[in-house]
Amino acid sequence: WVGSAGEGVVRLIDQTRLPSEFLQIDCPDVETVWEAITMLRVRGAPAIGVAAAFGAVLGARRRGLASIETVRDALRASTARLRTSRPTAVNLFWALDRMDRVGEAEAALADSPAALLDRLLLEAKTIEQEDRAMCRAIGRHGAELIGQGQGVLTHCNAGGLATSDYGTALAVIFSAAEQGKSVHVYADETRPLLQGARLTAWELQRRNIPVTVICDSMAAQVMKEGRVQAVVVGADRIAANGDSANKIGTYGVALAARAHEIPFYVAAPSSTFDLALPDGSLIPIEERDPREVTHGFGRQTVPDGVDVYNPAFDVTPARLISGIITEKGVIAPVSTEGIRAMLLG
Amino acid sequence: WVGSAGEGVVRLIDQTRLPSEFLQIDCPDVETVWEAITMLRVRGAPAIGVAAAFGAVLGARRRGLASIETVRDALRASTARLRTSRPTAVNLFWALDRMDRVGEAEAALADSPAALLDRLLLEAKTIEQEDRAMCRAIGRHGAELIGQGQGVLTHCNAGGLATSDYGTALAVIFSAAEQGKSVHVYADETRPLLQGARLTAWELQRRNIPVTVICDSMAAQVMKEGRVQAVVVGADRIAANGDSANKIGTYGVALAARAHEIPFYVAAPSSTFDLALPDGSLIPIEERDPREVTHGFGRQTVPDGVDVYNPAFDVTPARLISGIITEKGVIAPVSTEGIRAMLLG
Repeated sequence: WVGSAGEGVVRLIDQTRLPSEFLQIDCPDVETVWEAITMLRVRGAPAIGVAAAFGAVLGARRRGLASIETVRDALRASTARLRTSRPTAVNLFWALDRMDRVGEAEAALADSPAALLDRLLLEAKTIEQEDRAMCRAIGRHGAELIGQGQGVLTHCNAGGLATSDYGTALAVIFSAAEQGKSVHVYADETRPLLQGARLTAWELQRRNIPVTVICDSMAAQVMKEGRVQAVVVGADRIAANGDSANKIGTYGVALAARAHEIPFYVAAPSSTFDLALPDGSLIPIEERDPREVTHGFGRQTVPDGVDVYNPAFDVTPARLISGIITEKGVIAPVSTEGIRAMLLG
Repeated sequence: WVGSAGEGVVRLIDQTRLPSEFLQIDCPDVETVWEAITMLRVRGAPAIGVAAAFGAVLGARRRGLASIETVRDALRASTARLRTSRPTAVNLFWALDRMDRVGEAEAALADSPAALLDRLLLEAKTIEQEDRAMCRAIGRHGAELIGQGQGVLTHCNAGGLATSDYGTALAVIFSAAEQGKSVHVYADETRPLLQGARLTAWELQRRNIPVTVICDSMAAQVMKEGRVQAVVVGADRIAANGDSANKIGTYGVALAARAHEIPFYVAAPSSTFDLALPDGSLIPIEERDPREVTHGFGRQTVPDGVDVYNPAFDVTPARLISGIITEKGVIAPVSTEGIRAMLLG
């Protein structure tokens, strides 16, 4: 967020332009934030939550500051709009619920519309600040699981670009590196949108951590060759039993890791858990535009008229997950009871 | 082959241009055939074998027809050159060995250099003709394994473009369709060079067989959703015990198929077996230019200076293979004894 509550904007890195261009965009209203989330200019479950919280502030002021009710109603309409941007990452709904709760409570207490708006901006900044602290805590807990000299495979991007600080899955790697461990990362390129090739490789390179990009189809082979001793990925929504939705392809990686007896870890903050869902079969899976597959590289790669299926996420069952690394500690083994004990205990 | 032994050329579809362009190229000499194989203008283990056989004919005439020895020596030099084009598909070496054997034997028998060249062209045409018959026989045997209404997943392209007729893995599907079975094919796009998206989808669409293209990372999810009842892939080299090298990603597909208890079949002619290798660990795996991954389709997708690993093949262990479909019949279960009995029995 840049500027005052009344005049400020949300500043984002346009992640669709990386790694060729580092371009920041300013979102002055709720629609530009909605578009940025939908088009994956901002992406990664925690970052989507933070961006949506700031988007709610932009929305709350869009009908002016004539009365407290005006701000409250504009907030309600804006959070409803932002909820439609993407379906899978629960952090989006978690952050918007939190903004709604603060809006309702503060509407009764605030002594002016501007004070209400200030309070909303403070809440969004608190979410962002908590997200920063979460990254550091996940990194600290997760780094204990990574050994000196290990190869670590990751899928998609769960790094600084996906959060407010330095990531979830990548926080584990960054923290291990800060502890002086040498780690070699294998980054799945992550079709169709290549977040691994474009974003994870870029982040690791900037921090001087050795990284090798592979096609998604090479992960099993790289494991077979003995190059990988741990897998760490992020998550977009985790059900009460530990079933974890993450970028499409994660499930196949988990199956390959199990076949090679390589530990498979999910790193995610408590805001990514959806305890209302008993298991992963109930997680809504976003299906995206076939053109992401057919026209992904600037050249058409599938003949006209051929059907394409493009689910953006899959669900890895809890039984394939060796541990879930949260900001509160590592849940291992993964079970409904273990999750409740860590998050609510 | 178009034209006479002395003047003819090898005509190939340039598969790197598909599906946007259907372009045929004429190779007038051994170097253009070598380049076409190396650059994957012609690809697919059986097609590489056939192209190399014709390439050997072009090479045999390259020093003119002054004497039988001239032709024989030019043949030897040309087959040696063609052997360096790609390392993994054994059909290449199989076809060139055969051309060499005929060259040596006929050099002693032929009554003119032109007669020797004619005999070499006849041998190459015989290899091509056998390849056509092989496709049909593989299709016939394999179609028995496919049920009405099934979803069949394939990886890479083992179709008409990979052979002289209508393929190995795709022959099974084409033959099942000819028998009146409705089949829905899931085609892995097959990074980095997208043979599935570009070539398999194109072939199936031309034959009006329903096909859905997916990213490689989606195969496990598509299996989990119950969309796939069988996997059929081709092979580039099969060791004596049944371990099968095929396009990178095949091994991960086999692991996912096993996890979902879906039968996984390899379709390949006897020319793809390398009985000199006891198991797959001895199969040489080609590593290709990182730019196939980083600059696949016109847009740079990996930051400059980031390391890339690009193995072109992996080896699926025999224990994950439900059956190998050859032109002589189906080898199931897959074992050294079963393979010897089918191929040599």
